[in-house]
Amino acid sequence: MSTTPRERNARCSIARSLEVLGEKWTLLVVREAFFGYTRFADFRARLGIAPDVLTARLETLVEGGVLERRPYRDAGQRQRDEYVLTEAGRELKTVLGAFTAWGDEHRPSGFGPSVRYVEEATGEPVRVGFVTEDGREIGPDAVALVPGPGSLTSAA
Amino acid sequence: MSTTPRERNARCSIARSLEVLGEKWTLLVVREAFFGYTRFADFRARLGIAPDVLTARLETLVEGGVLERRPYRDAGQRQRDEYVLTEAGRELKTVLGAFTAWGDEHRPSGFGPSVRYVEEATGEPVRVGFVTEDGREIGPDAVALVPGPGSLTSAA
Repeated sequence: MSTTPRERNARCSIARSLEVLGEKWTLLVVREAFFGYTRFADFRARLGIAPDVLTARLETLVEGGVLERRPYRDAGQRQRDEYVLTEAGRELKTVLGAFTAWGDEHRPSGFGPSVRYVEEATGEPVRVGFVTEDGREIGPDAVALVPGPGSLTSAA
Repeated sequence: MSTTPRERNARCSIARSLEVLGEKWTLLVVREAFFGYTRFADFRARLGIAPDVLTARLETLVEGGVLERRPYRDAGQRQRDEYVLTEAGRELKTVLGAFTAWGDEHRPSGFGPSVRYVEEATGEPVRVGFVTEDGREIGPDAVALVPGPGSLTSAA
């Protein structure tokens, strides 16, 4: 590849969102896993992440149940682990979709979206939104956050 | 309040998600802003965050266009700044909604959800999902991530 990880991340809406919103590597590893990458060397090359940081982030994701280790062995090589999304990991698709939409809108790179979300069967673009139980989509402005049963706000 | 920030965070799906997924404070500050808190002392008391860390996170959020400073002065006090969600900040509602759903499902606290999302007009629960351009909701398994125009993956 002729491009650097820095250039790739500069074009990635999620990366730009996470520059504001948190520690970026974990969700970027998850993004690469959604693209089908599973191996330490691939994550490292695509993200330009230091090996010790990548090791720590993979450990966090495995402990958190987002990735699972699977041993593999290439011909003539020692056995290594690859990292595959668990069901919980695959369900982060909505989180990534929400981050991408926000970054595309509020932190655009000038190159256009780096990731698009499409209906697999039709190729039709999809967006992340709020949906009522009877299937009506409603805009975020019509949605309120309220304390739930696990909140201490209402009890305090 | 009789409860500690540690207890409050233990019940918060977003906090538990971010223990796996990134640096937690920024989105938690945003969550508190959605609940209507705007002041340094409120963020500090509700999150149990060290003052220097909170100062740094607020600075990040202001620079990133998520919060804006507004001066206020209580009677007999010096002028201080409060922190109010910008339009970009308010549009993080979908990101928080996606994180909450994931945390409720995959990192439950045992106390039930700490935040619920409801249609303001009806009180009806809403969920975050993928919606096609013609308004059909489709499950995440039917959605594919593909490189967009800003991606270097397709060009490499």
